[in-house]
Amino acid sequence: MHQAVQPLANLLGAWQGRGHGEYPTIEPFSYVEEITFGHVGKPFLAYQQRTRHAESGQPLHAETGYWRPVDDGGVELVLAHPTGILECLTGNTTIDDEGRTVIEFTCRPVLSPTAKSVTETSRVFTIEGDTLRYDMAMAAVGHDLTHHLSARLDRVTARRSESAASTDA
Amino acid sequence: MHQAVQPLANLLGAWQGRGHGEYPTIEPFSYVEEITFGHVGKPFLAYQQRTRHAESGQPLHAETGYWRPVDDGGVELVLAHPTGILECLTGNTTIDDEGRTVIEFTCRPVLSPTAKSVTETSRVFTIEGDTLRYDMAMAAVGHDLTHHLSARLDRVTARRSESAASTDA
Repeated sequence: MHQAVQPLANLLGAWQGRGHGEYPTIEPFSYVEEITFGHVGKPFLAYQQRTRHAESGQPLHAETGYWRPVDDGGVELVLAHPTGILECLTGNTTIDDEGRTVIEFTCRPVLSPTAKSVTETSRVFTIEGDTLRYDMAMAAVGHDLTHHLSARLDRVTARRSESAASTDA
Repeated sequence: MHQAVQPLANLLGAWQGRGHGEYPTIEPFSYVEEITFGHVGKPFLAYQQRTRHAESGQPLHAETGYWRPVDDGGVELVLAHPTGILECLTGNTTIDDEGRTVIEFTCRPVLSPTAKSVTETSRVFTIEGDTLRYDMAMAAVGHDLTHHLSARLDRVTARRSESAASTDA
């Protein structure tokens, strides 16, 4: 593993869990989620995420990109969404009083010509052993920054070796 | 398959091949490449790409994102790079005189705070049966738009069914 990704090593592996979504413009909904973090020995983690409707199993959201550790506990997260939204999230890693890793991101998204208007997003990830939680808020379609998603996932595979990640990352 | 992705259906599957890179600031190099296009029944293709050095096998570039067909043969390609670059490429699909599908994209990239300066990119993809070729140019680190990459890949798996794609896309 590249030394630069050591601060994010506790993300490596595959995660599965459930979440709940809400927004002023939609009906609340529940979803199941898979996230994978891999590495190939370079200074970033490859990230893939997908959700499905908790009852119908229908594909809902997906996103993919890279987590880039930068100086002093900083992290840049570059993401592409199938909805035409690109996010360059910038954040910082801290350890809270109970020993959990907390990563807080803010972002001004970039939109493809046909994407819906999303003007601001924020995310907070909390990692505690083999549990990953996040909350996500967004300002979209005329609404100010408003809570959108909460989820809890559990690690389902061990942290990946470089060789395993190289087939997936 | 979603009707909207029908114009891009000939991309579906996994591709492998070789390419060659050059730029005024670097030594020319050869690489091997893998690309996969999957779908989950929604109006986009999921795209993952990775290259390795042709001789050492060392991981070189990677990128990931989504191809979004829009009206009148248009395509939006939203990509994240581990180098902190985000691309929203906009392009058009045409069929040339010899029946090949040609997709030409241009882009003004978006950069994370620590990314190197890349101010413009262009890509041309040509699909002819089970052969995919592309050329890529970029304006970077003070140089005008200059040829950077050429590659030829061959399809190595059949076009994916929705169920197969749903585990990878």
